[in-house]
Amino acid sequence: MITQQYEACIQACLECLAACNSCYDACLKEDDVKMMAGCIRMDRECADICSLAVKAMQTNSPFVNQICQLCAEICEACGNECKQHDHDHCQKCAEACFRCANACRGMAA
Amino acid sequence: MITQQYEACIQACLECLAACNSCYDACLKEDDVKMMAGCIRMDRECADICSLAVKAMQTNSPFVNQICQLCAEICEACGNECKQHDHDHCQKCAEACFRCANACRGMAA
Amino acid sequence: MITQQYEACIQACLECLAACNSCYDACLKEDDVKMMAGCIRMDRECADICSLAVKAMQTNSPFVNQICQLCAEICEACGNECKQHDHDHCQKCAEACFRCANACRGMAA
Amino acid sequence: MITQQYEACIQACLECLAACNSCYDACLKEDDVKMMAGCIRMDRECADICSLAVKAMQTNSPFVNQICQLCAEICEACGNECKQHDHDHCQKCAEACFRCANACRGMAA
Repeated sequence: MITQQYEACIQACLECLAACNSCYDACLKEDDVKMMAGCIRMDRECADICSLAVKAMQTNSPFVNQICQLCAEICEACGNECKQHDHDHCQKCAEACFRCANACRGMAA
Repeated sequence: MITQQYEACIQACLECLAACNSCYDACLKEDDVKMMAGCIRMDRECADICSLAVKAMQTNSPFVNQICQLCAEICEACGNECKQHDHDHCQKCAEACFRCANACRGMAA
Repeated sequence: MITQQYEACIQACLECLAACNSCYDACLKEDDVKMMAGCIRMDRECADICSLAVKAMQTNSPFVNQICQLCAEICEACGNECKQHDHDHCQKCAEACFRCANACRGMAA
Repeated sequence: MITQQYEACIQACLECLAACNSCYDACLKEDDVKMMAGCIRMDRECADICSLAVKAMQTNSPFVNQICQLCAEICEACGNECKQHDHDHCQKCAEACFRCANACRGMAA
């Protein structure tokens, strides 16, 4: 399996993807949606780049380093947004984002 | 050009994609984001399926009929959500969605 | 967790996504790429719809049934293409596709 | 319209997307698919990042600069691959890629 070297990072991206998608859905159902607008936007950005990073690693893309570097940056920003909110889904999402940012940074290096 | 038969439908999908993405961004900046939560969700769904439909037509996917049929259904639902809101971006989005739904329905038939 | 009801189907889609992306990469490296052209195309179609199905389930999309139904159909077709080839990556991909088709069919019903 | 500043770059990305998707489909139908394997892979990478760049600009993503910078790099690489092949679809694709790389570089700066 060519992608074995990527396994840990793929796993971190998949967990971040799941957390961002759940947080996005939950934010849209909160009473104070306005307060969550930044979080909704970031969750979508982060889910989309995690999805691209997974594809890049699973297909042995020649751009895997650059894509993981961008993924790390967006995960970091999404984590910083989410951690400001007390909702359980935001706190869990922030943790998944920071773990994924670390994994992607390691991959890009 | 193999995709020539698809040109009108591709164009309708690209206009719907642009309208949904603009409406999504504008909804997240409205004062009453809560009222726009359904619209935000639909805009993302619709942009994602329009994007898939464009790819299907441009690559001569064997699933182009089924994908356009699903795109028509999602565009119709997004248009019905958007037309309930007076914001200019919602009204424009609704129009683009209904035009795209028609084009995709014709393609799927 | 709102998406708990979807867990088994999400897992099947993620395994199918991984198998399709690996098979796509491996097919492009085979000596006889021409023989794999149908497989390359199907792997891409299948990976893209699995990715959309995962997002639909994780975000509680109102279109989850329709998207899973389409995913089942594309997985079935990809599995039928892959199983014709003796390569290990094709056989593994076919199995993942048929499992995912079953899971998605159950979800759509 | 908030995205007006992005119009020229969005247009270049959409033309590159169309060219890459057409070239991908045509390459898979060539007699000598093996010779086109690099092109098939690059066309997919490039179409996917152009699609992400369009979404980033149309939704006013906070990561528009970084995404356009990555898009420029991938377009450049795809153009360099495509221009080596005499097929009309490859030559057209190379031109669209280089134009898009320029537009995205300008946007990222």
